[in-house]
Amino acid sequence: MQLPQIQRRKSRAVRVGNVTLGGGAPVSVQSMTSTVTADAQATLAQVRALTSAGVDLVRLAVPTRADTAALERIVGESPVPIIADVHFQAERALEAIAAGAAKIRLNPGNIQDRDQVRRVIDAAGEAHVAIRVGVNEGSVVERRDTARRQADLAKPLDDLMVEKLAEYLQTFQDAGFEDLVLSAKSHDALTCVSVNRKIAQRWDYPLHLGVTHAGTAQTGSIRSAAAVGTLLVEGIGDTIRISYAGDPLPEVAAGLELLYSLRLRPRVGAELVACPTCGRAMGDVAAMAEAVRCALADLAEPITVAVMGCVVNGPGEAANADLAVCAGDGKVVLYVRGKPLRSVPIDQAVQAVVEEARKLVGR
Amino acid sequence: MQLPQIQRRKSRAVRVGNVTLGGGAPVSVQSMTSTVTADAQATLAQVRALTSAGVDLVRLAVPTRADTAALERIVGESPVPIIADVHFQAERALEAIAAGAAKIRLNPGNIQDRDQVRRVIDAAGEAHVAIRVGVNEGSVVERRDTARRQADLAKPLDDLMVEKLAEYLQTFQDAGFEDLVLSAKSHDALTCVSVNRKIAQRWDYPLHLGVTHAGTAQTGSIRSAAAVGTLLVEGIGDTIRISYAGDPLPEVAAGLELLYSLRLRPRVGAELVACPTCGRAMGDVAAMAEAVRCALADLAEPITVAVMGCVVNGPGEAANADLAVCAGDGKVVLYVRGKPLRSVPIDQAVQAVVEEARKLVGR
Repeated sequence: MQLPQIQRRKSRAVRVGNVTLGGGAPVSVQSMTSTVTADAQATLAQVRALTSAGVDLVRLAVPTRADTAALERIVGESPVPIIADVHFQAERALEAIAAGAAKIRLNPGNIQDRDQVRRVIDAAGEAHVAIRVGVNEGSVVERRDTARRQADLAKPLDDLMVEKLAEYLQTFQDAGFEDLVLSAKSHDALTCVSVNRKIAQRWDYPLHLGVTHAGTAQTGSIRSAAAVGTLLVEGIGDTIRISYAGDPLPEVAAGLELLYSLRLRPRVGAELVACPTCGRAMGDVAAMAEAVRCALADLAEPITVAVMGCVVNGPGEAANADLAVCAGDGKVVLYVRGKPLRSVPIDQAVQAVVEEARKLVGR
Repeated sequence: MQLPQIQRRKSRAVRVGNVTLGGGAPVSVQSMTSTVTADAQATLAQVRALTSAGVDLVRLAVPTRADTAALERIVGESPVPIIADVHFQAERALEAIAAGAAKIRLNPGNIQDRDQVRRVIDAAGEAHVAIRVGVNEGSVVERRDTARRQADLAKPLDDLMVEKLAEYLQTFQDAGFEDLVLSAKSHDALTCVSVNRKIAQRWDYPLHLGVTHAGTAQTGSIRSAAAVGTLLVEGIGDTIRISYAGDPLPEVAAGLELLYSLRLRPRVGAELVACPTCGRAMGDVAAMAEAVRCALADLAEPITVAVMGCVVNGPGEAANADLAVCAGDGKVVLYVRGKPLRSVPIDQAVQAVVEEARKLVGR
């Protein structure tokens, strides 16, 4: 059956190590380490864990000289390109570029001296290092001049952010620097959507999407998927970070899941489809689905396995799965690509599904 | 600061007990019990638990006569309107209407006899009971006629679903029945978005949104928030169900969180904003945020509390929170509505934040 497809916005291609952002390249997933970067060993361990989870790019905070000093080893040993997150001190950006970072994230709002920003631009240009220019809702309202502050507060937040980004970009455009990635983040999901739509209209640089301070995984997943998902559906966004407070690993799983669910990236491994359990369910659907998911966690082959608790949605929806199991009356019926295969007692269902799934992918 | 707002689609109002769907009424959250409905006591216990979690409407499966027999007691004691989910047997719908269900969910695709559907419509009309007419991706492809099946498979899935819905609606329109809610669900997020956009263009009945077989809470939250969130941002949707395999309680939390995050419903209680922890963080931000969240779980007053690990985003973003705490150098600074209040040692931070939050809301 023909399914709708996302028409992606045309953006220019920017290279970040061996990963391309924009220009039709797949949307990439990034995350950020929570280790102290100066501890190269701990940081590399986390970078490797994030890579195993499927991350494409990893960002590190480099607030001190000790952090940038550790960067050369981290960059050398990291399996994915490393991005240095710089605030306040342009020196850190220069050191990170010298250490081989593939991209610098800069918020020009907290580096007041334009000459310093210009030095970073020149160094990045020479080293072919990309720069993400970011604007956050926290950095757009004038803090010192009361009159300007009042004027700012009267404006729509998204317009204020676009205006501030344009002001930041002027320095880069004056220098003829084009390897830019833009971002505009807010805690407010609708502001994220709105400001990125406006940016996508105005510039053709690749866009980095994310919601700031989304919260913990439980609530943050909803806010982030709503905002980032809405933009991706509209074709906007070239790299994403789902950000949670705490351990960064669940961020990667969430980012990948978002891309899978919008068919922006082919799923790796088994996809478990489980019916929403209701009073009709003949077995413990969630437990069965979870048991199958765990038993097939080692598969890299894309395969859809549906676990259905009854005959209402079961057979119809099973037609779209590679393998399906529908419970009913003490037994389950296995379907392969919509065709009934055999029935087995319900207590052997998990084993039977796992066996058939492995047969289908040939291992 | 001015924030973007969702412009909701104009839909006609349909009453479901004391809850209105459409016509500008707030988007409502529904869920579905996983108990056997015939067990009225267990079902009522779950309905009450869902109500405590904030659900507006609860749906029950009624596959047998024993289930509809339990409905009268359940409807009588439930704190929220009850919806009966009917498949295959029109008798169940008639019994559910007689038992006082506020709404019937019907998939006319599995009740072939139009006269039976017509009897349900007449009974619902007399009792002022609303009917949700649903179409699922599993029910749109012709199963018996091979030639028609081939023709169906060549069409876009979303168009096929709209066509099938129009065919279902004909029976209702012929009967002059207007208390309708429409739904079109798919496992595929983009199909959900696309089919609902088309339905919203064509009819003005309120829409029920959801993704079928979204999976367990961990992955299902992403898929559901992306699809349902995209539609809500576009103003489409009058009632939502986030559906997970297993326990329905997390569905309600997820549905509410989605409405809160899009400002479609004012948040009840404290909202914790936590920075995405990175190498700059001076304390365990996630643990601190979680401790504060738990200590304030009893508050009903809306209050935003931000927990920030460093000075980069902290003070700026703190300006938008009612109460904020920014860590730095062994101590934390408390801010009330953007103004610094006092600093306390980091190990007293949680206690201090909780005290100040209770002061702000007056208890």
